[in-house]
Amino acid sequence: MRLKEIEAQAGCPGYRFAAGACGLKKNAQSDLALIVSDSPAAAAAVFTDNRFPAAPVIYGRRQLAAGRPVRAVLVNSGNANACTGDTGLAAVRHTAAALGEILEIAPEAVFISSTGVIGEPLPTAKITAALPELVSGLAAGNLTAAATAIMTTDSRPKTFAVQVELAGGPVRVVGLAKGAGMINPRMATMLAYLVTDAGVPAADLQEVLETVVARTFNRISVDGDTSTNDTVLLLANGAAGIAVTDDADRAALAAGVLLVADQLARQIVADGEGATKTVEIVVKGAASAAAAEQVCRAVGNSQLVKTAFYGQDANWGRIIAAVGYAGVALEPEKVDVWLEQVRVVRGGRRDPGYREEDGSRIFRQPGFTVTIDLGAGSGSYSLLTADLSHAYVSINADYRT
Amino acid sequence: MRLKEIEAQAGCPGYRFAAGACGLKKNAQSDLALIVSDSPAAAAAVFTDNRFPAAPVIYGRRQLAAGRPVRAVLVNSGNANACTGDTGLAAVRHTAAALGEILEIAPEAVFISSTGVIGEPLPTAKITAALPELVSGLAAGNLTAAATAIMTTDSRPKTFAVQVELAGGPVRVVGLAKGAGMINPRMATMLAYLVTDAGVPAADLQEVLETVVARTFNRISVDGDTSTNDTVLLLANGAAGIAVTDDADRAALAAGVLLVADQLARQIVADGEGATKTVEIVVKGAASAAAAEQVCRAVGNSQLVKTAFYGQDANWGRIIAAVGYAGVALEPEKVDVWLEQVRVVRGGRRDPGYREEDGSRIFRQPGFTVTIDLGAGSGSYSLLTADLSHAYVSINADYRT
Repeated sequence: MRLKEIEAQAGCPGYRFAAGACGLKKNAQSDLALIVSDSPAAAAAVFTDNRFPAAPVIYGRRQLAAGRPVRAVLVNSGNANACTGDTGLAAVRHTAAALGEILEIAPEAVFISSTGVIGEPLPTAKITAALPELVSGLAAGNLTAAATAIMTTDSRPKTFAVQVELAGGPVRVVGLAKGAGMINPRMATMLAYLVTDAGVPAADLQEVLETVVARTFNRISVDGDTSTNDTVLLLANGAAGIAVTDDADRAALAAGVLLVADQLARQIVADGEGATKTVEIVVKGAASAAAAEQVCRAVGNSQLVKTAFYGQDANWGRIIAAVGYAGVALEPEKVDVWLEQVRVVRGGRRDPGYREEDGSRIFRQPGFTVTIDLGAGSGSYSLLTADLSHAYVSINADYRT
Repeated sequence: MRLKEIEAQAGCPGYRFAAGACGLKKNAQSDLALIVSDSPAAAAAVFTDNRFPAAPVIYGRRQLAAGRPVRAVLVNSGNANACTGDTGLAAVRHTAAALGEILEIAPEAVFISSTGVIGEPLPTAKITAALPELVSGLAAGNLTAAATAIMTTDSRPKTFAVQVELAGGPVRVVGLAKGAGMINPRMATMLAYLVTDAGVPAADLQEVLETVVARTFNRISVDGDTSTNDTVLLLANGAAGIAVTDDADRAALAAGVLLVADQLARQIVADGEGATKTVEIVVKGAASAAAAEQVCRAVGNSQLVKTAFYGQDANWGRIIAAVGYAGVALEPEKVDVWLEQVRVVRGGRRDPGYREEDGSRIFRQPGFTVTIDLGAGSGSYSLLTADLSHAYVSINADYRT
């Protein structure tokens, strides 16, 4: 079973990508991305569990439930098409039909996503007018351009690719994603598209995706806010001529999907709005995995902890306060906290051997791990989070202006 | 039943106040406050539900459970005496004994609180050395000085007083509080001390306090972080010679305590770290009060909603997104959102009659109300919250340096 990173820009056999600008963003910035599979691709997806799902999420959920293969994925940035009611759903249908006509495929084979401002009507005329040029620009090597077109407050495009050796030969898993704010995924996260040229039945694909998402995109947070539009889509078109049918190949492919998803998720946090640090919060020794997750999220989403990260102040009291209000029963005198390899809290109070300069040195690094051992069992969880900086406030105080 | 605001500085019969500086804060700022009741006062208290309660919280909880009357309250700022283990508890006992000796009262009649940095040993020698001068400064008119001495990142002291007409004549309820950060109380909040010269049995007093706290201090939030030291104490020394024994007087006194607590709670949010706005989030039409509270807290603690408040950007999509991820079942098409008297969301989407300039006008005010009607029942809740500003980040990135 071999797995190696490859250049994402090389793309994936049987898929073409394109980017365009239709005026949803200012200054002719690209705001439309298109992925086309040359043959019908098995599809798996996970969506936000926000109770106000955006129109394309409602549409996509029905589409995937019907089990139809996907031929094209159209994503616009600059407008979320969320809280737009029936008009919003009609806009999705209209756009899918227009693209289907140009590509000469069924509208049901078009998967649609949107990201941007919530509550504004989607100007479909702008999008459909731009489709012919978008389609004419489709090329195997346009992955980065497509990843750029789906950005909102992101500062850089996010892509990653691996090659996986299966029994029958090599296949690729290639992904692109966006996300910098409103990041606190629960069933899925933000927009991410993974494609493979392996042949995989849709049911297997969905199982792989759900397992992977639980371990990657669902374990990141920028600001504790869960978006209305989160979507992760995984396509498998079989262009490699290699079908995944046995457990060994399934496991190999899943490892590839996991690595691509993990790298994209890390890129999202590293590019979190205003982020200057990426911090992994690890909780272990919890009574259950659920308890570990609860503590992990309390610490990772604490405004006070996140400003301490930003200020490079190893203020472990804020970490302990967040552990204490997480709502999980615990015995303070069994709790240890580590900053990387330095134990700062032992038995619920400052480790006598802890020296402030050791904590400061770790907090000055661009990334580090905080480990909290509750001493109560074997439940564990980890969460990748960003700091809370002046730039975060600036970006979000001015977002729509 | 009459209730009127009076000048807090006038104090409360039978109580004296003092402030001092013992070097826990820099630049000889005052960091010790003392309240003495000239006669034993019935006491009621509520404390943080953080699982890492500070040493004085552990001590105070036992003290109140024993039902002993209180003669003196000593509060230090600059050090939270939290996560300090047995040494921290010994420090509380030692300080109470030292003060009891000077005042010639039992150490068990001394109530202790601490607020400040978590995890540092409390330098009791500094405190005990300052006690004689502190005691000599006790005076009926020193309320504001005492309120100033308990501040940490607060920018101003917080006091409020009312006079209540009981059947037997007028009594007073006077309060002081501190709090600006780590404000997301759940069973109690921060430090607040209310005193009355009415005579009230301790059990009645506790009932009044718990009801009042649920409606005041527990309904404010600055940053979603629940402190390790939150404490609200209510003392009744009977100095007015008027005992509260019947329901009418109990209700009148409770109304007075409620008003003082409400005003102190509002002062805490208005003085929240970096706060430029105070916003009341009201959720109604929920299936239950608990569901309403859950939605209220999701909206009021959302980083994205709070930065929109700061940016004066009526970005209601973020409010809706927070309602949607609160974890409460709801039907989007029944949800309305109002900014003051302006309906912005109707049936889960933008109200056709909403004009952006109306929302902008409201968001430019220093305070306003956001009302969310879930259309699902009669459960309601309200939460007073602050915005998330650059100043908040500055204060908390630099707190210990």
